[in-house]
Amino acid sequence: MHIDVQFFPFPPSPHLLSDRTIVVIDVLRATSVMVYAMAHGAKEIVPVKTVEEAFQLAKTFVRNTTLLGGERESNRIEGFDLGNSPGEYTSEKVAGKRLILTTTNGTRAFHSVSSAAEILVGSFFNVTATAHRCLEGERDLLLFPSGDEGNFSLEDTVCGGMVIDRIVKKVKKPVTLTDTSHSAHILFQRFQANLVEAFYLSSHGKDLVDRGHGEDLPYCAQVDITNMVPAFKEGVIR
Amino acid sequence: MHIDVQFFPFPPSPHLLSDRTIVVIDVLRATSVMVYAMAHGAKEIVPVKTVEEAFQLAKTFVRNTTLLGGERESNRIEGFDLGNSPGEYTSEKVAGKRLILTTTNGTRAFHSVSSAAEILVGSFFNVTATAHRCLEGERDLLLFPSGDEGNFSLEDTVCGGMVIDRIVKKVKKPVTLTDTSHSAHILFQRFQANLVEAFYLSSHGKDLVDRGHGEDLPYCAQVDITNMVPAFKEGVIR
Repeated sequence: MHIDVQFFPFPPSPHLLSDRTIVVIDVLRATSVMVYAMAHGAKEIVPVKTVEEAFQLAKTFVRNTTLLGGERESNRIEGFDLGNSPGEYTSEKVAGKRLILTTTNGTRAFHSVSSAAEILVGSFFNVTATAHRCLEGERDLLLFPSGDEGNFSLEDTVCGGMVIDRIVKKVKKPVTLTDTSHSAHILFQRFQANLVEAFYLSSHGKDLVDRGHGEDLPYCAQVDITNMVPAFKEGVIR
Repeated sequence: MHIDVQFFPFPPSPHLLSDRTIVVIDVLRATSVMVYAMAHGAKEIVPVKTVEEAFQLAKTFVRNTTLLGGERESNRIEGFDLGNSPGEYTSEKVAGKRLILTTTNGTRAFHSVSSAAEILVGSFFNVTATAHRCLEGERDLLLFPSGDEGNFSLEDTVCGGMVIDRIVKKVKKPVTLTDTSHSAHILFQRFQANLVEAFYLSSHGKDLVDRGHGEDLPYCAQVDITNMVPAFKEGVIR
């Protein structure tokens, strides 16, 4: 099994996508929101790139079946039902509902890897289940941190490193790591005793604190609160 | 002082170059060769992108004043005087000579940052001197690992992390680190007791071993064998 990590959120080369499992990771906060919402009974999530697209798509569904969620500049979008803090996505609000989600980094990432064989939604909330699902797939793996506005993201890479850690501890076959997957694993090892420390050091974590969303940092650092591993297929996360 | 590391060897944005000190790092092996050659009395080094350019340029100088060095696919180029192993660049061969050098990653990197305020040549051979020279410049800093054929390079990033380590231990002013510079520092800390381990784990290090240049790995992992910090200016390293 070959494990690679793409450190920058550019659309990967086609040869990195075909016949691979991709794990999209945006722990602050898009993939944390997705995993949390699906674990709390959401029916499905449609990640879209723009606010306009979200409003247009919502009009095509029956009223009250669909909620709009996401952020721009880390804040809830005017006219949307929910922001981008996972704790908002309670069973009372999301059970049985379709969510249309648009965020700065995370939702876009799914569209840039859409030709892959299998696309999973990873976060600390479901990190061990994600690793085990990757092992079941038996495909080579590309971890895809969604980044911070086009830049390398420390916290997403640490989460990718934790997926690698869980895989290498369980896998029976030989695993080959690249320079980036070795590095992600080492970065996870540095922060494993205190994951939230990586969040507070990171540029995006500091930015969230400055914008009044500091409570989301320890929240998103919770590990293995669910076994659910949502997958993105044909434009929809289920 | 702001310290950033560019994890991928793309030409940096102009705003990352203006008024900054750049440290180009290609420890396996271009910048190691450059530092070693200058420390052993070479007069100057002209890094060029192509083999053809190297031959053309050599014709413009008086015979016996100039040597051709470098590699393609890690091996010495036909018709060249020297390959890309630093140990070849002895005083007997290079003292007083001009070198024209072309390599796959390292020599190209200099041309992609040529508009920066100051461009230094970094390696493990001169890592502490490089850090101190950065402090003297008092500019913000961009460390520029040359990468491995366009990809992230573990060994160059570890060397960048060692420059950061030397700076943060000596600097009096506050230092701000980015997600990449935090990560490079952590990767250095992981390998500081055994730098060559990073070389053997890295894709480029493994490739050099496979191509019969394994002896260059421990050679290039030697720390602080010189205080010389060559600089690239107007196309020439002196």
